[in-house]
Amino acid sequence: MGFENQMLEVAGAARAAAREVAVVDSAVKDAALSKAAELLVERAAEIESANAEDLAAGERNGLAPAMLDRLRFARERIEKTAAGVREVVDLPDPVGTILGEDTRPNGMRLSRVRVPIGTILMIYESRPNVTVDSAALCLKAGNAVILRGGKEAIHTNVAVAAVWKQALGAAGLPAAAVQVVSTPDRAALGELLKLNELIDLVIPRGGEGLIRAVAEQSSIPTIKHYKGVCNLYVHDDADAGMALEMTVNAKTQRTGVCNALETLLVDAKIAGAFLPGCLRKLREKGVELRGCERTRALDPEVRPATDEDWAAEYLAMVLAVRVVDDLDTAVAHINRWGSGHTDTIVTRDEAAAEKFLKSVDSACVFWNVSTRFSDGFEFGLGAEIGISTDKLHARGPMGLEELCTYKWIARGNGQLRG
Amino acid sequence: MGFENQMLEVAGAARAAAREVAVVDSAVKDAALSKAAELLVERAAEIESANAEDLAAGERNGLAPAMLDRLRFARERIEKTAAGVREVVDLPDPVGTILGEDTRPNGMRLSRVRVPIGTILMIYESRPNVTVDSAALCLKAGNAVILRGGKEAIHTNVAVAAVWKQALGAAGLPAAAVQVVSTPDRAALGELLKLNELIDLVIPRGGEGLIRAVAEQSSIPTIKHYKGVCNLYVHDDADAGMALEMTVNAKTQRTGVCNALETLLVDAKIAGAFLPGCLRKLREKGVELRGCERTRALDPEVRPATDEDWAAEYLAMVLAVRVVDDLDTAVAHINRWGSGHTDTIVTRDEAAAEKFLKSVDSACVFWNVSTRFSDGFEFGLGAEIGISTDKLHARGPMGLEELCTYKWIARGNGQLRG
Repeated sequence: MGFENQMLEVAGAARAAAREVAVVDSAVKDAALSKAAELLVERAAEIESANAEDLAAGERNGLAPAMLDRLRFARERIEKTAAGVREVVDLPDPVGTILGEDTRPNGMRLSRVRVPIGTILMIYESRPNVTVDSAALCLKAGNAVILRGGKEAIHTNVAVAAVWKQALGAAGLPAAAVQVVSTPDRAALGELLKLNELIDLVIPRGGEGLIRAVAEQSSIPTIKHYKGVCNLYVHDDADAGMALEMTVNAKTQRTGVCNALETLLVDAKIAGAFLPGCLRKLREKGVELRGCERTRALDPEVRPATDEDWAAEYLAMVLAVRVVDDLDTAVAHINRWGSGHTDTIVTRDEAAAEKFLKSVDSACVFWNVSTRFSDGFEFGLGAEIGISTDKLHARGPMGLEELCTYKWIARGNGQLRG
Repeated sequence: MGFENQMLEVAGAARAAAREVAVVDSAVKDAALSKAAELLVERAAEIESANAEDLAAGERNGLAPAMLDRLRFARERIEKTAAGVREVVDLPDPVGTILGEDTRPNGMRLSRVRVPIGTILMIYESRPNVTVDSAALCLKAGNAVILRGGKEAIHTNVAVAAVWKQALGAAGLPAAAVQVVSTPDRAALGELLKLNELIDLVIPRGGEGLIRAVAEQSSIPTIKHYKGVCNLYVHDDADAGMALEMTVNAKTQRTGVCNALETLLVDAKIAGAFLPGCLRKLREKGVELRGCERTRALDPEVRPATDEDWAAEYLAMVLAVRVVDDLDTAVAHINRWGSGHTDTIVTRDEAAAEKFLKSVDSACVFWNVSTRFSDGFEFGLGAEIGISTDKLHARGPMGLEELCTYKWIARGNGQLRG
């Protein structure tokens, strides 16, 4: 059973819609977004009832409670999501910003201008709010978006798609600017991933397996958000109180998120004074500890860590602990075992901090700041569509600007090349 | 015969070298570049004699004269290439530039800083100067580079590699910052393209077939420079003299380059007055013309064009000509048939020009400027490593800044997330 023609139609319509959305005024896009926020609340009962179908099916299929919770899209969450769309309305339009200007010796006035990317394919799992959030950000940045959520949320997503259609129509924008792929078949996704002439960017949000599969399968540029194996390095000149508070905050304030702490590195010169109390505190908080030999020499209750622990994204109350000889060893550990997401140093020594900030090859590198602040909202991007661990196009939290590209514009008076 | 271990070693060494080169001072990188420029001239005889081997083999293998010419790396070209390296020394170091700064409400000082990408794999065909130019740009931007040139140029490239090794050593930089893959075997390239944990970016320079093959084969981000199907649209309010001069310039000043004109679009309202004289002039210059029915009604000597002509990158003295109803039709033609490279409008009407600049979805969009100016040097980038027709990461001429990514740096005083 082929989805070739069906997906070609979806992507072709998205491409045509993208051309329209790319050049409309901010007010038109904002009108569509405001209308969508309004309709989400107005039609909440309908969305809730579609969501109830998905939840019932999920229960029948034995989905885990955490999964069912992610799937749930009740009135309160719908209203919160609608409020998020209104926040996107208030953000400045990224399109049209002049990124650079120059008049060349031949009189040609050159500028680099931010423009939409075109058509974006979002691939995600069960959370239905992504069907709202991602579409709002893509649309605000002047893109068309194709939304391919998990099959568990299919009824909810289709109900949300109806809201988008109505909102776009009310603003005079093409319905194909936001499309939900309503077939759960994997073959349909496979067809979409082939359409590199019609789709400009793929953003998979979900587990590493999903992301790797998409990146392998498609020649369309893909923004990858792999693991967040975040490290905190306690330098020998650290304020021990700050280092303790920050370790506890980064590990325990919320564990299931990509900017939570996974590995604690402690300078050998401070380990004896710092580690025993710190480990005791973490254990009190319910954190399971896995450490190197030197850590275990200071606290024999710590289980031995293996190389797998240095690369682990636990997303749970587990922490890997390693004593390192010095700053260079800490940096080498992070560049070898980290995931290039977010890493932080605690120290009073500015020179040491600056060396760390320069040498750690990660999207976000912090000094005396908890890894938990690696977040589009905390960075002032207003909202984020994900956190990229890629180095190309976008790195770290991605907001509206990262959903754009640029073009070069030259204005002249008949310049010829001699 | 497996190249797995050999290529793993090359890429691993590049990665380690990249970490070093990323953090050294500009002066160290510049010292290596200056030394390389000096050594190229000093060791020109040795390079010429290696090149003579390649040329002799090329002749034996019946390479076309144009191919042999591209392969030739005689003293004059070597000296010119060395001068190019000195120009790269004079360019500002892109690394460390602050792209944005903000103090967040919690006191965290956030900045976005330009940093090197890491390890770049350049894949190219016969021109040995790429072995110098690309390496110079990659190194200046703080990256390590793996150079995989065509097998025709292998002796020349190995001789140039020896210059790089000596220059890097003299500056105290690791030799693996610039490596030439000296095996011509395609299997070796296949192995490199798998190493997505060690190589951050692939830049293939060459024919469309090569680029597509690399993009299909590898999950490493790839900068694609496909065809340059450049369009010139003569609006009905064009200065006819300027339109004629620009058409002739863009088509005939140099034909084998990606920013040469391939399709002329003429507004129906000006076609009768403009086209016959323009086509006569082009024919005098030796241009073969292929046109739509309306063009042929004005000049029956024009051969009929097919859809293939609208998508053709002739790179030769051939031009496709189409009469279009209006600006919208011209834009639709370009967005449908062009390659997103460079397109220009000739008009005195500012509103029409601005609409064209906004609506054409190409890397470079010009008003009253010849398409031939789409070039890193003309744009003031100092030098270019290619012209990207991709929308992601880099679009249009790519200079030093486009060989960099960025990282987010936050400096605080113990910020915890509440």
